[in-house]
Amino acid sequence: MSKTIVVLGADGFLGWPMSMHLSRLGYDVVAMDNLARRRWDLEGGTYSLVPIAPMERRVERWRELTGKTIDWHNVDLCDHMALDDLIARCRPEAVIHFAEQRSAPFSMVDQAHAVMTSVNNLVGNLNLLFSLHRWVPDCHLVKLGSMGEYGCPNIDIEEGYIDIEHNGRHDRLPFPKLPQSFYHLSKVTDSNAIFLTSRIWGMRATDLNQGIVYGAQTPETELHPDLATRLDFDSVWGTALNRFCVQAAAGAPLTVYGKGGQTRGYLDIRDTMACITLALENPPARAECRVFNQFTEQFSLNDLAELIVSTRRELGLETAISHIPNPRVELEEHYYNARHSSLLDLGLEPHYLGATLLESLLELVERHAAQIDPVLLERPSVTWEAGGNEIWERYADRQSSDTLVAETDALINVSHNR
Amino acid sequence: MSKTIVVLGADGFLGWPMSMHLSRLGYDVVAMDNLARRRWDLEGGTYSLVPIAPMERRVERWRELTGKTIDWHNVDLCDHMALDDLIARCRPEAVIHFAEQRSAPFSMVDQAHAVMTSVNNLVGNLNLLFSLHRWVPDCHLVKLGSMGEYGCPNIDIEEGYIDIEHNGRHDRLPFPKLPQSFYHLSKVTDSNAIFLTSRIWGMRATDLNQGIVYGAQTPETELHPDLATRLDFDSVWGTALNRFCVQAAAGAPLTVYGKGGQTRGYLDIRDTMACITLALENPPARAECRVFNQFTEQFSLNDLAELIVSTRRELGLETAISHIPNPRVELEEHYYNARHSSLLDLGLEPHYLGATLLESLLELVERHAAQIDPVLLERPSVTWEAGGNEIWERYADRQSSDTLVAETDALINVSHNR
Repeated sequence: MSKTIVVLGADGFLGWPMSMHLSRLGYDVVAMDNLARRRWDLEGGTYSLVPIAPMERRVERWRELTGKTIDWHNVDLCDHMALDDLIARCRPEAVIHFAEQRSAPFSMVDQAHAVMTSVNNLVGNLNLLFSLHRWVPDCHLVKLGSMGEYGCPNIDIEEGYIDIEHNGRHDRLPFPKLPQSFYHLSKVTDSNAIFLTSRIWGMRATDLNQGIVYGAQTPETELHPDLATRLDFDSVWGTALNRFCVQAAAGAPLTVYGKGGQTRGYLDIRDTMACITLALENPPARAECRVFNQFTEQFSLNDLAELIVSTRRELGLETAISHIPNPRVELEEHYYNARHSSLLDLGLEPHYLGATLLESLLELVERHAAQIDPVLLERPSVTWEAGGNEIWERYADRQSSDTLVAETDALINVSHNR
Repeated sequence: MSKTIVVLGADGFLGWPMSMHLSRLGYDVVAMDNLARRRWDLEGGTYSLVPIAPMERRVERWRELTGKTIDWHNVDLCDHMALDDLIARCRPEAVIHFAEQRSAPFSMVDQAHAVMTSVNNLVGNLNLLFSLHRWVPDCHLVKLGSMGEYGCPNIDIEEGYIDIEHNGRHDRLPFPKLPQSFYHLSKVTDSNAIFLTSRIWGMRATDLNQGIVYGAQTPETELHPDLATRLDFDSVWGTALNRFCVQAAAGAPLTVYGKGGQTRGYLDIRDTMACITLALENPPARAECRVFNQFTEQFSLNDLAELIVSTRRELGLETAISHIPNPRVELEEHYYNARHSSLLDLGLEPHYLGATLLESLLELVERHAAQIDPVLLERPSVTWEAGGNEIWERYADRQSSDTLVAETDALINVSHNR
């Protein structure tokens, strides 16, 4: 009998390819999403460079091409009754939780966005923990965290826990975190909540501190345009390497924030699929909150920019690099060395970043180059000090923004009556 | 010109005596509260053993007896517009933030209480940070945290930060936290948020990780019965030493949870007043998030029980001790050694726990002994594994509980529409 896996956030950049990947491997996939990411695009005037089909069409095309069923539900994790019904009915073996507001700049737009991000991610995660505890206490929760939870400490980053010798005594404790945005703070809170429930309820969990994902193609997304996943290039939703590729394809300079020494862990989208599958196939024990650092290589922004310049040079193309004022508050030159051996020990065979991936990504982007908005591509619309700036204001849909503010107020009134 | 201090949570066990203490010292005190604590009493069927006057009467009596004005406002921190108006108008020198749901058992009753505690504390704290950043970026935020954020690590607990040597490198990082309830988790999140805003906005903050407060009398509360502060004795709101004193006064056995080796930091309520005053008088620099461990002595539950037994024996009274099953998931025998030198270095002169305090507390309790409910006194109504039990159900007001659930649902619907 095949195992049931619930994928939360199944409409997202990674959730959709993950749903197909697991379906192809023979799991019974229950896919949930509230489609929030598409609404946030409407609010901020942003969009996926690669067109994405609605979930209904994706799931129908998948069935047509593979004969396999992905059981799709439009459900919000914050709707605890709908979530609870679904978990009670499908009794999953494992749940993969991608369903959060995942942009650091979006969380820094203003007070309403900071509060919304914090509440959305916190409440969704708590609801999930309660439903799993209630119906499937043995279920394996695979939660997507972020390498950004750690920030940039001046010591080696371990995988979740660190052995500390102090005044002649020893303990193994959670690795100290230095989140640098309200979004990353929400991820730290999630990690703490999951670890807490492993101790008090015996929850079985894998917390994956993922690096920055590049690429947008997996064997499944390439089967048909209706199966494509999103590719973001604006400063709010796009991430470093993908953004640079779009800038290069558009003939624009690569915009490096500040000095460009900011170093992070990166991985290929295909390795995200492999890492999560490995975590599923090798579940932790009851009461274990296992933490893996999910990336394969470290690069600075300058490293990535140079890599694109040299790859394009071999194709006979010139690429400019422009250092622009850093919209974020972050270290621009720092020590960075993060351990990431657990997934390799489980058998991960990384797709290291090389010319082949870059060329295929550049090729994908060039097919859609006519859709690129040069303003969204070039100018950061949110700064850590002042929030959404004139670019944000120019693109933001006033009605959607007002809705967000009104909803935040409603939330506030709710708490008021306690 | 006198300085304006805003006290948030001014109707609470500590907030009210603090407001009077600062008023007497000559500060202009603006006192805010949403009176939530009184509503939670209505919901859970609990009450203060010492009767407490409404805020209007307290403030009026204070003016009558001292000639000093406490500027009282019924405002909820989660009402961001009301809070923002108030901060914009009074432009405080410092804000003391007590305004949170502060009971670990209350946060463990069920999903609705866990979510309410988490959201209430998170949103109130974020709203405050945004209003201070907007109107008074130089303001000193004094935030009440909890020693319970640290849990019980097997190494010495430092004051907020720890110097870590690791693989030949060094950094000073946030001390790893092991919160053991949803309430304590919310305090960890608050600490992380305040530290984040000190880094990105230059917030000036003191995070006070307070131990368990005993006593209920300060020079100000003793001026008149209308100025008394609350004294809780039930298992949800009462804390260790105060609860034991009420049990002793009622002729009931002292109920020690489990083996009783649980060791924590404790302090006299008068020392809370002194510690916060010292923090106010010695503000940190801009961009500094200073952390003090605010307690004066460590005791195990068994230590405290024995102290009461011996104090009463000298008065010719016998006291029984009963070890009952532990409703919490926690270590019952463990290493515990927490640094607490910063406030002593600033000049704190502690009131150490001794027979005089115990006798005066026992005397206070005996005056109100007729009001003691023996069931609330004896039986824990919430367990960490199963939530609110039959005792909770017996006392809880169904209508108030339904309101809480409905409000949590409303909150969920709000997030749903994002």
